[in-house]
Amino acid sequence: MSVGHTEGTAPPAVVCEEHEDCGIRDVLDRVGDTWTVLVVVELARGERRFGVLQRAVDGISQRMLTLTLRRLERDGLVSRTVFPTIPPQVEYALTPLGREMTHLIKALADWSLDHRDAIAASRRGWDEAHPGSGIR
Amino acid sequence: MSVGHTEGTAPPAVVCEEHEDCGIRDVLDRVGDTWTVLVVVELARGERRFGVLQRAVDGISQRMLTLTLRRLERDGLVSRTVFPTIPPQVEYALTPLGREMTHLIKALADWSLDHRDAIAASRRGWDEAHPGSGIR
Repeated sequence: MSVGHTEGTAPPAVVCEEHEDCGIRDVLDRVGDTWTVLVVVELARGERRFGVLQRAVDGISQRMLTLTLRRLERDGLVSRTVFPTIPPQVEYALTPLGREMTHLIKALADWSLDHRDAIAASRRGWDEAHPGSGIR
Repeated sequence: MSVGHTEGTAPPAVVCEEHEDCGIRDVLDRVGDTWTVLVVVELARGERRFGVLQRAVDGISQRMLTLTLRRLERDGLVSRTVFPTIPPQVEYALTPLGREMTHLIKALADWSLDHRDAIAASRRGWDEAHPGSGIR
């Protein structure tokens, strides 16, 4: 799928009080954040120190990595362990809850990889049938 | 999870050329779009006409619904059938590919509903331990 982020009016918060499915957004807002996905996919490979994570997630700034990790910690998806060395070492790892969520995200990612050719072919066909549509 | 969308620098496009996992973003950009999720979840219940969809997805504008459906059509996830009535009726449905993807999205949504209490409790604990952190 292409860049599909909200254009124009954002979905109103009230949608979530009225739809039974809206527990959805709680997870999907996070899942839609690419930095978060890249961080949890890296942590799925094993526990990581901050610097190692930053090198693994290409292009992430120190500030954005800090923010992403704190949100995941706050949600109970990532744990933070401080080792009393000098200087102190801090290690991040997925919690059991985080591991479950990452498993589901990976299923979507794997599905995406398996079907990227079908989706690309569909897009080419659609673009040929709708020249100048501007849909991406 | 809370509103977790990108703050500050957006992930550079180049990330996706360098990470084996980046087929991910293709799907997750779409999954992170709440309107898209609400539309596919509604279509998972059965085929729908435009007006019926618009009433079901509370708060979506005609323009946004049109755009969301066209993107899904372009990706090959939704089909559009025109019936030669007067006026013509147009019906939207998930394709087999769209049904597969929606199934995975629903798995994430269901997981989210099942664990919302655990996540909310984690957040309360974190916020008490980090007053004034501003993390959301």
